[in-house]
Amino acid sequence: MLKHYYRLAAILGLLSILLLALVTAAQEETKDPLPSWNDGPRKKGILEFVRLTTDKTSPKFVPVQERIATFDLDGTLWVEQPMYTQVIFMIDRVAALAPKHPEWKTTEPFKTILSGDKKAMGKLVFKDYETVVNATLAGMTVEAFSGIMKDWLAKARHPRWNRPYTELVYQPMLEVMNLLRAHGYKTYIVTGSGQDFVRAFAQKVFGIPPEQVIGSALKTRYAYDKKGKGILLRSPMLLLDDNFADKPEDIYLFIGRRPRAAFGNSTGDRQMLEYTHAGAGPRLMMLVLHDDAKREYAYGPAQDLPASKVGTFTQALYDEAVNQGWLVISMKNDWRRMFLFE
Amino acid sequence: MLKHYYRLAAILGLLSILLLALVTAAQEETKDPLPSWNDGPRKKGILEFVRLTTDKTSPKFVPVQERIATFDLDGTLWVEQPMYTQVIFMIDRVAALAPKHPEWKTTEPFKTILSGDKKAMGKLVFKDYETVVNATLAGMTVEAFSGIMKDWLAKARHPRWNRPYTELVYQPMLEVMNLLRAHGYKTYIVTGSGQDFVRAFAQKVFGIPPEQVIGSALKTRYAYDKKGKGILLRSPMLLLDDNFADKPEDIYLFIGRRPRAAFGNSTGDRQMLEYTHAGAGPRLMMLVLHDDAKREYAYGPAQDLPASKVGTFTQALYDEAVNQGWLVISMKNDWRRMFLFE
Repeated sequence: MLKHYYRLAAILGLLSILLLALVTAAQEETKDPLPSWNDGPRKKGILEFVRLTTDKTSPKFVPVQERIATFDLDGTLWVEQPMYTQVIFMIDRVAALAPKHPEWKTTEPFKTILSGDKKAMGKLVFKDYETVVNATLAGMTVEAFSGIMKDWLAKARHPRWNRPYTELVYQPMLEVMNLLRAHGYKTYIVTGSGQDFVRAFAQKVFGIPPEQVIGSALKTRYAYDKKGKGILLRSPMLLLDDNFADKPEDIYLFIGRRPRAAFGNSTGDRQMLEYTHAGAGPRLMMLVLHDDAKREYAYGPAQDLPASKVGTFTQALYDEAVNQGWLVISMKNDWRRMFLFE
Repeated sequence: MLKHYYRLAAILGLLSILLLALVTAAQEETKDPLPSWNDGPRKKGILEFVRLTTDKTSPKFVPVQERIATFDLDGTLWVEQPMYTQVIFMIDRVAALAPKHPEWKTTEPFKTILSGDKKAMGKLVFKDYETVVNATLAGMTVEAFSGIMKDWLAKARHPRWNRPYTELVYQPMLEVMNLLRAHGYKTYIVTGSGQDFVRAFAQKVFGIPPEQVIGSALKTRYAYDKKGKGILLRSPMLLLDDNFADKPEDIYLFIGRRPRAAFGNSTGDRQMLEYTHAGAGPRLMMLVLHDDAKREYAYGPAQDLPASKVGTFTQALYDEAVNQGWLVISMKNDWRRMFLFE
């Protein structure tokens, strides 16, 4: 008896799926999954890659388990000027804690940070920021850190647009992420910024769950609170520094597979793009070129600014991209719309 | 016009879903998702936990993004006697490479391993195996390692059952994994064994993709092959040693969330269970007790064997489990069927 109901349900279900497929196919042609992109080789390249790797009849079809796409964060998914958002967070954190640390007035790198002298701050190196993180953001539980982060994100505003940093994400890249996910791709953020810094907003802003954020990370230490409950404390020791060659290394550590598509904007992403490219079968490698001073910023080969950051879009990287056939996105020409609030 | 077809498709679809739900509900009561488990508090505990955390009307409902379940491997998902499978792999690897290394005949720990003296081998410590891994399984590309692993797995046989090691997985635990996954839980393996050792078979044997295997891991090094292509080489340096307190630490590093359910069988899993337990809301903590010498092995508190391994089921762990209300699985009494081949 139940068998008959199952059969009836199956027939009705099939009918509805068939009908839906027919009308959806009819509408598909008119619907643009990348409305913030101008037509051109970059938009076409993305659409072609997705079609080729997910159409079952395509000779370049990629099984769904192997559909991995990795995105750098700073300068690729959101604004990284005038400084990395995480660096601004650290500077604000130093200012917030300064009253309790009078000695910082005479101790580097705190002295420079508290001076507000942006030129001097621009000369601080990675090691200085490590000192700041260890002094201001270690020793607490991972939950306490996450709380501080979320409070800061809610209040902080970008100096140019006077908007929360989480609104300064590139709408065209969100569309690429959505397109890839709609076709079975697992999207990851692979960033030199702090892993739990990014995890605090990645789900809400990019639709990416914590376990798909790979980033620089402090070691944590398992301990017990006063009630004997298991907690994790942030240790003042850098376990992962997720830049340059560490990006493919950490991708292997976390994912265990080579990406099919990778997106970056600087020499810090070079090895991730090379590693992606070196795999067999279809691969998509793209670099975001900041060449739009009017709507955002212009730097890198477009302006030949000095290489003051962890990673920059150098002329050598530009040449490598061209030689390898990677797609270089011109923000000015390829992006019709930059931000959602525009 | 298209709108009408959409509406018709939706109505047909709803009808089929409704019908399916009705007949499925009618059958549900008669279908046991854990057929290899005997009735009792452990089976009931698992079913209750799944129902409570996934029924939308339950006050203990857990959103799908937070449904994380972590499983130890050795002794929890498959046989770990007479030695960890990975240790057997390393021993076989030393034997295979010995002809090229005459010096091993007089160098420890290779000399002991090549002697075949199991008692002496039992005295080797973690550091010795690190030496072996560095000498036999580092320096190659990650793909080369994976190939060696898969070849070995295909040929190696367990001395007692004369079957591939991948057949010595506990059928009741596979059922628990399937039940959790069918209810939106993301299942992870969190193991002291090597991450890429386990990734080589986790998908096929446990239905767990590489990115959901967290384990001990060597550092890799990004390099270029002769053709200039990006590759990853295994470095002789242990980056993660995923035992004891490192289990919750690595869970945080990889997943960024506290598990809702955790399964282990030794002191190496203690902190993972404690950390899981310390979270708010409903949590399930379970330990597998090896008390079935006839069908498998009996050790730990059941037999009071010496603590010669990385993790063992000590009396102290047993007491902690009882005091904390964790469920201790008796393989003898709770499992109707141990292996699929029985």
